[in-house]
Amino acid sequence: MPAFSHFTALAQSLPPTVPFVGPETQERARGAEFKARLGANENGFGPAPSVIEAIARQAELSWRYADPENHDLRVALGTHLGLSPERVVVGEGIDGLLGLIVRLIVEPGTPVVTSLGAYPTFNFHVAGFGGRLVTVPYRDDREDLDALLDAVRRENAALVYLSNPDNPMGTWHSAEAVTEFAKALPETTMLVLDEAYGETAPASALPAIAALADLPNVLRFRTFSKAYGLAGQRVGYVFGVEETVSMFHRVRNHFGVNRLGQAAALAALKDQNWLAHVIAQVETSRDRIAAIASRQGFAPIASATNFVTIDCGRDSGYAKAILDGLVSRGIFIRMPGVTPLNRCIRISTGPAAEIDLFEAELKNIVADLG
Amino acid sequence: MPAFSHFTALAQSLPPTVPFVGPETQERARGAEFKARLGANENGFGPAPSVIEAIARQAELSWRYADPENHDLRVALGTHLGLSPERVVVGEGIDGLLGLIVRLIVEPGTPVVTSLGAYPTFNFHVAGFGGRLVTVPYRDDREDLDALLDAVRRENAALVYLSNPDNPMGTWHSAEAVTEFAKALPETTMLVLDEAYGETAPASALPAIAALADLPNVLRFRTFSKAYGLAGQRVGYVFGVEETVSMFHRVRNHFGVNRLGQAAALAALKDQNWLAHVIAQVETSRDRIAAIASRQGFAPIASATNFVTIDCGRDSGYAKAILDGLVSRGIFIRMPGVTPLNRCIRISTGPAAEIDLFEAELKNIVADLG
Repeated sequence: MPAFSHFTALAQSLPPTVPFVGPETQERARGAEFKARLGANENGFGPAPSVIEAIARQAELSWRYADPENHDLRVALGTHLGLSPERVVVGEGIDGLLGLIVRLIVEPGTPVVTSLGAYPTFNFHVAGFGGRLVTVPYRDDREDLDALLDAVRRENAALVYLSNPDNPMGTWHSAEAVTEFAKALPETTMLVLDEAYGETAPASALPAIAALADLPNVLRFRTFSKAYGLAGQRVGYVFGVEETVSMFHRVRNHFGVNRLGQAAALAALKDQNWLAHVIAQVETSRDRIAAIASRQGFAPIASATNFVTIDCGRDSGYAKAILDGLVSRGIFIRMPGVTPLNRCIRISTGPAAEIDLFEAELKNIVADLG
Repeated sequence: MPAFSHFTALAQSLPPTVPFVGPETQERARGAEFKARLGANENGFGPAPSVIEAIARQAELSWRYADPENHDLRVALGTHLGLSPERVVVGEGIDGLLGLIVRLIVEPGTPVVTSLGAYPTFNFHVAGFGGRLVTVPYRDDREDLDALLDAVRRENAALVYLSNPDNPMGTWHSAEAVTEFAKALPETTMLVLDEAYGETAPASALPAIAALADLPNVLRFRTFSKAYGLAGQRVGYVFGVEETVSMFHRVRNHFGVNRLGQAAALAALKDQNWLAHVIAQVETSRDRIAAIASRQGFAPIASATNFVTIDCGRDSGYAKAILDGLVSRGIFIRMPGVTPLNRCIRISTGPAAEIDLFEAELKNIVADLG
């Protein structure tokens, strides 16, 4: 019997392989678990004890669907942000919300602008809805706001992606620069402002909520996956003008957010002391990773995130050799995927014991490679 | 500043209101929690103690993303089903997986067949991708296989939805009838066979895995939300021919499944003793709900699910009055949405104390209504 032939032409045109290789896949291939997990910008300092307790309290109620309105969490986020809860939507991580905004705006051929080497999951969604991705190179390891704006205007783009702070480089723009960029966009271009790493950035890097709050073409995406330490719980959120935000309700998976995830996120948001404690640990760990890199003669790039990207000073082959060496020795890290960013490796902050392992193995590998 | 104008025409055409009103929304409106939660076909008998333990063990690792391949769970499901794990995909509940299969097959105008009054979330997804929904009435409170097949052929439908056992009526077809239906479909029509309630059905209602395993146009959807008691964890799965199943990877949210959900589902699958224990409780509860209905002169419809749909013997206004009476007295239930199914109310099985409350209030309401 032949294969099913009625998939859409778009679906049939998509690549069968996808670029999401988790550390577990590598562990299965290696036949051993990683000794240090520093590749996915997770938060190895972990969620708050109050969050673990909230999860434990909810576990027996796992038989209940979660509230499809995510009401309590949206109210808490609204209070936290100084916005009405109607201006906030919760989804299955920023990844899930990115898929929805792309779906709401992108049709086959719709031009979309992003930076070359920026978040691949956004690109995956754009491809998945047939969008035409236009990329702009980084400049000095930062997303190039002027070039992004030029590309938006030239292509009449419906959507532009900006992460601030940036992944995979860890760099950032000032609140003023981001605000100016947002306001300069055509009103027919939606800005996807990915602030997944906002909590670990200096305050001066984040536009005040009010600064962008009245722009119908700006959506700010945040998550509990990074500083709040809940990557496994899949809770992200987006906020903007109510008329824009409400469009998500037309297409989202209303019962998609995990009940324990909602409870965990709510508890995490309430425990701002733990967040401050984690952010201090992230800063200490960033400094230490930078110092380790410097001792090897490498150039750590100043970071506003929970990772440090390290310029290894040669070509991508050298950076890849270092990465392969670390991975083969049980240290899970990643590196940027495109030139010239791929002269770098990227190390997530984490517990001192894991950074110890990274330090020791990096030294060995650099010596071996010569 | 004007609202954002660049949403797709399809997105702008979708209704701003959606038909997903959770019990929490009603509780907020009432200003009080429900005393009995018998409306969403959740499993009030709860997940296994072994599952609660698995969740507790994973809670501290909530900072880690889940394995995007859902490898361990797919292997366990493959073993359970007698299929290779490549033939299984895990997603954010059946709801999430339904959205993906619709996306893979439906474009604006694509004909899709379902039964009038069947699962509204499937219809939500079809509308969300612009499909043209063709509905077929139930016959004798069952999905009408002959009429579905006729509609598929007449419309040259790309997709047909069948739930067996059925929601909202609780009825079912035999394995032979379903197998015959599947094999009679044009090979250009994908069968979405929703078996969410399969675990509580008689064995004779479920086609053997092998019976449909070689059909590239059949996908069987199952879930941990019902008999396994994990609705809040959002873990569903789909299986079929590998070439068909693998299409999900092109568009799914690879990191979308919750880490604790994966662990909970894996533990639940391993604890088949608990499942048997729950199924026995469901059967006892079904019998009791049926007896309660009969004592009021109503006609309970034989059910293969974890709920009982009760024919109240008059029109939809009467059924609605009973529903409203129960809800106002703190008993959360639901009812079918279309004629003639809406002469019925639908009561989920659940703990005896909740059924006690239902029984007492139903008696009062029926007496009041006269």
